[in-house]
Amino acid sequence: MVGQHFIRFLQGHPWFKLIWLGASDRSAGKKLRDAAPWRLDGDMPTTAADLVVSESKPHNAPRLVFSAMDASVATEIEREFAQAGHCIVSNSRNHRMESDIPLIVPEINPGHLTVIRRQQKDRGWKGMIVTNPNCSTVTLTMALAPLTRFGIQRIVAATMQAVSGAGYPGVPSMDILANVIPFIGAEEEKMQQETQKILGAVEDDHFVPLDARVSAHCNRVAVVDGHTVAASVELSAKPSVSEVEEVIGKFRGLPQERKLPSAPPRPVIYLSQQDRPQPRRDAARENGMSVFVGRVRECPVLDIKFVACGHNTIRGAAGAAVLNAELMASEGLLD
Amino acid sequence: MVGQHFIRFLQGHPWFKLIWLGASDRSAGKKLRDAAPWRLDGDMPTTAADLVVSESKPHNAPRLVFSAMDASVATEIEREFAQAGHCIVSNSRNHRMESDIPLIVPEINPGHLTVIRRQQKDRGWKGMIVTNPNCSTVTLTMALAPLTRFGIQRIVAATMQAVSGAGYPGVPSMDILANVIPFIGAEEEKMQQETQKILGAVEDDHFVPLDARVSAHCNRVAVVDGHTVAASVELSAKPSVSEVEEVIGKFRGLPQERKLPSAPPRPVIYLSQQDRPQPRRDAARENGMSVFVGRVRECPVLDIKFVACGHNTIRGAAGAAVLNAELMASEGLLD
Amino acid sequence: MVGQHFIRFLQGHPWFKLIWLGASDRSAGKKLRDAAPWRLDGDMPTTAADLVVSESKPHNAPRLVFSAMDASVATEIEREFAQAGHCIVSNSRNHRMESDIPLIVPEINPGHLTVIRRQQKDRGWKGMIVTNPNCSTVTLTMALAPLTRFGIQRIVAATMQAVSGAGYPGVPSMDILANVIPFIGAEEEKMQQETQKILGAVEDDHFVPLDARVSAHCNRVAVVDGHTVAASVELSAKPSVSEVEEVIGKFRGLPQERKLPSAPPRPVIYLSQQDRPQPRRDAARENGMSVFVGRVRECPVLDIKFVACGHNTIRGAAGAAVLNAELMASEGLLD
Amino acid sequence: MVGQHFIRFLQGHPWFKLIWLGASDRSAGKKLRDAAPWRLDGDMPTTAADLVVSESKPHNAPRLVFSAMDASVATEIEREFAQAGHCIVSNSRNHRMESDIPLIVPEINPGHLTVIRRQQKDRGWKGMIVTNPNCSTVTLTMALAPLTRFGIQRIVAATMQAVSGAGYPGVPSMDILANVIPFIGAEEEKMQQETQKILGAVEDDHFVPLDARVSAHCNRVAVVDGHTVAASVELSAKPSVSEVEEVIGKFRGLPQERKLPSAPPRPVIYLSQQDRPQPRRDAARENGMSVFVGRVRECPVLDIKFVACGHNTIRGAAGAAVLNAELMASEGLLD
Repeated sequence: MVGQHFIRFLQGHPWFKLIWLGASDRSAGKKLRDAAPWRLDGDMPTTAADLVVSESKPHNAPRLVFSAMDASVATEIEREFAQAGHCIVSNSRNHRMESDIPLIVPEINPGHLTVIRRQQKDRGWKGMIVTNPNCSTVTLTMALAPLTRFGIQRIVAATMQAVSGAGYPGVPSMDILANVIPFIGAEEEKMQQETQKILGAVEDDHFVPLDARVSAHCNRVAVVDGHTVAASVELSAKPSVSEVEEVIGKFRGLPQERKLPSAPPRPVIYLSQQDRPQPRRDAARENGMSVFVGRVRECPVLDIKFVACGHNTIRGAAGAAVLNAELMASEGLLD
Repeated sequence: MVGQHFIRFLQGHPWFKLIWLGASDRSAGKKLRDAAPWRLDGDMPTTAADLVVSESKPHNAPRLVFSAMDASVATEIEREFAQAGHCIVSNSRNHRMESDIPLIVPEINPGHLTVIRRQQKDRGWKGMIVTNPNCSTVTLTMALAPLTRFGIQRIVAATMQAVSGAGYPGVPSMDILANVIPFIGAEEEKMQQETQKILGAVEDDHFVPLDARVSAHCNRVAVVDGHTVAASVELSAKPSVSEVEEVIGKFRGLPQERKLPSAPPRPVIYLSQQDRPQPRRDAARENGMSVFVGRVRECPVLDIKFVACGHNTIRGAAGAAVLNAELMASEGLLD
Repeated sequence: MVGQHFIRFLQGHPWFKLIWLGASDRSAGKKLRDAAPWRLDGDMPTTAADLVVSESKPHNAPRLVFSAMDASVATEIEREFAQAGHCIVSNSRNHRMESDIPLIVPEINPGHLTVIRRQQKDRGWKGMIVTNPNCSTVTLTMALAPLTRFGIQRIVAATMQAVSGAGYPGVPSMDILANVIPFIGAEEEKMQQETQKILGAVEDDHFVPLDARVSAHCNRVAVVDGHTVAASVELSAKPSVSEVEEVIGKFRGLPQERKLPSAPPRPVIYLSQQDRPQPRRDAARENGMSVFVGRVRECPVLDIKFVACGHNTIRGAAGAAVLNAELMASEGLLD
Repeated sequence: MVGQHFIRFLQGHPWFKLIWLGASDRSAGKKLRDAAPWRLDGDMPTTAADLVVSESKPHNAPRLVFSAMDASVATEIEREFAQAGHCIVSNSRNHRMESDIPLIVPEINPGHLTVIRRQQKDRGWKGMIVTNPNCSTVTLTMALAPLTRFGIQRIVAATMQAVSGAGYPGVPSMDILANVIPFIGAEEEKMQQETQKILGAVEDDHFVPLDARVSAHCNRVAVVDGHTVAASVELSAKPSVSEVEEVIGKFRGLPQERKLPSAPPRPVIYLSQQDRPQPRRDAARENGMSVFVGRVRECPVLDIKFVACGHNTIRGAAGAAVLNAELMASEGLLD
């Protein structure tokens, strides 16, 4: 599924052209149209449909390779490609928490890319691996990014996540119709750890996680696309609600400054209606690349609470990786 | 809708018999079957269908009256009945937070009924008003009740609430299909205040709210029946996860001790499966009168987190009121 | 899933007791509680949970065996059991259309059981195989049964089928949330052929299908339980709408006459409300064993049109098979 | 809701510019942003948001007026505007079946516009009223249009309609979550009559309905946008399945020939996958202006059966009316 989102997201991209598709032996040699049914809305893009799928081996592959591999196989294959000189921009979870592999949200921690120097040196790689976070982490960290100036100390976040986050076939309909599943395997740990890494610093080419405690409650709901996060945050500077609303609305990052092709003009958009954001009505706006925040209000337990919503398969997966690659290109890393 | 749930819940009740239905002038004089379409599953119970609806006036009404009136009209009418000697067991929100009106969950705070003495004396009533909490509050407080021994200090709770909580027609399908609505009018305030009152004490016939901070995030999801609550709790005694699981499983209250007709044998049931409780699979079990708790685990921010689920129109409304009335009957208050 | 429905449906059965569970080698030797997660609402019945699963071999199995095997393996195993003297009451599709195997809906064609004589003689079996129809066929044929007196000539039926009909994991949620899938593999052919066999006659121990043309349009919708069928029927006797409503309401069959334990008092129930039957509100009534019919009206193309709704995993699967077994027991076939 | 769809659909229209909004007295004088909350995805278009709403009176209104009025008030107001010289392109049902008012699907019956001559003459109008069909009728008639060459004799059609067809608040979520409602008020009659009128001829400025019998079964399902229709058709020429597939794929109409701005290049698109079309995956493609057809196969009762799907609020409402207006403009009727 994420692979198909990559294909769709890269259609008409001004910098990158889809020329190579790697897959398991079983699919290699087939045209994409024959290798796998198209699961997204509409039809398979015809330019991609005629590409012949290759085996997932480095030879013949281009310099920039997006990885949407299943975590069970990604580790070795991604390393093999990086060793062979490829720039792996990976959506897989395998390498995210490794001590020399950047976990990037371009608006938040572009400076983490500097750790690639150490990654290449220590591992003897000519290529590199850069990762993007889990889909629910992206939504939370984008909403938190404007608040870092206030000193984030503690976060309690409850998610309501779309079924598309589980891929295909993913969540059985018997489990989710008219229901909530209050558990997503390993998701809470990922949200907690990844958030600390992304919002953290880099010192001497080493990551220093944010010294804030994070607690996640992850739930699956009957939504197709769009993860919603209800969060309470403790902030050392004790800003007012209106100060928080203001910094959210004004937040911009390096992708906006550099006008990267997939960068949304406003990465975090504040919605003032009392019942927004909503996944079906908001997540796909701005090409699915912005995160929407609403209901900023005082929290009786921590300081501020709010609701955030983002598109899990675009900003939370394929679009996140493409924006990472654009950032890397703008840094000269793909040359 | 709540009225219809009362009718259904009272079918075959061993202590109470439905003999009188009060409604607005518009419906008065009609048989119930002609006064309003039946919105619940199945058919309107035939014994109720032939009852003639009366005007909502005290004369002719029985001693015990359940109120499911809309908050916009409930205040005056409920007082008028109490003045005239009726025992009003109300599901309406109007009187819940008043300083001399008990807000009861029979397993948790049956002792709050003693304030009725002061209520009757100060207001000069021969009757009385007793209320039950908002549907989401019941689920949260039932799950918290076994934890009070550990000293509850802070609670952050995010709800995923069923559409039946909004009555009929209630939530438009355009708003909720494949969507989440992260807002329910006044719900967060109700959960926060009611929780403190219910878990609080009574001193000299006055309520003393629990001195704990409560923060609620209330969300509507595409579920028919059953509210789910993801909660983090700070506990002064710092119990272990297994200690928490144990007290939840062992929790019993006065309704269980007295074997009140609608009391579930186990008011709070601990589910050990990692993905439970779930509203569609669990809320209606035990006649909808138990609250189900699962996923007790350590919270990196507060101390313990868990998931709770309860049936919002039964334990959260009609069943709650009937159990209140049973408790009152067992105290001799309805004689 | 159907196996689990059998387990639940047989709880407390007055004639049959669950004493033996057969499954694949992989599960054999385990207690049921360890062999498979419980997918239905609530908890696994404790009496069944402790049963040790056996290999699917005839030795040790009781005389009466319900089969919910996957069609891919059912053919050979069911025959092996019948050969060894077991009475196989099967929900699998494999043997339904064979020329000497009864396809029974007890209210409609109990007389088809006589073909068992020929089945046993021709195949040299001491046991027997009896089948029940596909879940959508049951709903349609039950609704049509009262109309056979009017001479059914042509039927066009469009279904809206619940996801539980596809088992577990079954329909991916990505396919069905806020969607319709206008295709269910082989379902239309099954509905068309099975309907003709069930509504047909038996002559000299041979089935004579009903000489009526049947066209089915099968669709999957976002419903948990309950198949809905919108049907138009051509009837040679040209009855009026009220005549059709009347015969539907009065319809009774042999299970009602013999008061079989699982027989609903009224197998087909006519609902007069203009927007009924509805799967979520009606399918589970009457223990899920009745079929509900509404909206009988004139059809501008054929003669009469109506809506029918039945519970697909009860009346359409487990309950259907148990009622078949009760009918067989009442005929002395299980002695 | 349809009004909001008009506003969105007209954004950036090359021929028409939104300059006037008429509404009830209650809203008149307010800016649109203050007059009504925006119910569609995303935000209210800013150009429309600042328009001041006028009273629904002819003076000041432009020549071309789109009407999305509720049927309860549309009749008199639309006539008043037509009398005063306005061209009313109406989505309301009121005038659709009148004997001198065209009911237009531009690809099917553009010639019906000639009846306007008689309409203006008989009624003494300087303006005119032109209507578009009910949303379910559009999907059915577009799918049938290519088949008219084969001689349509009988049609049985079962719909599965999206909740957006009922407007806002429209269908209560309690009615449709995990459910089917097999009834939509007056919908079946509309589909039956409108189909005959649209597929009919014009002789001497009078409509001659198609002499084909039509039977509709209308159902509401838990879909947001997109009506699905399962249809069986009797065709006098007895074409093969492949002939039917071919004419569907090749179908083009006058809007395509004239390249009207809102005309989809292929008004009816044949999908060859066995499980398509599907409302969530297909209805919004081609700007929501094409109708998708799949599963053409032999019908055992009539001749051919198929599935059609179209976007009910675009091709079935706002887009239909705008395309009508474009057709009228291309005929010089708006000059």
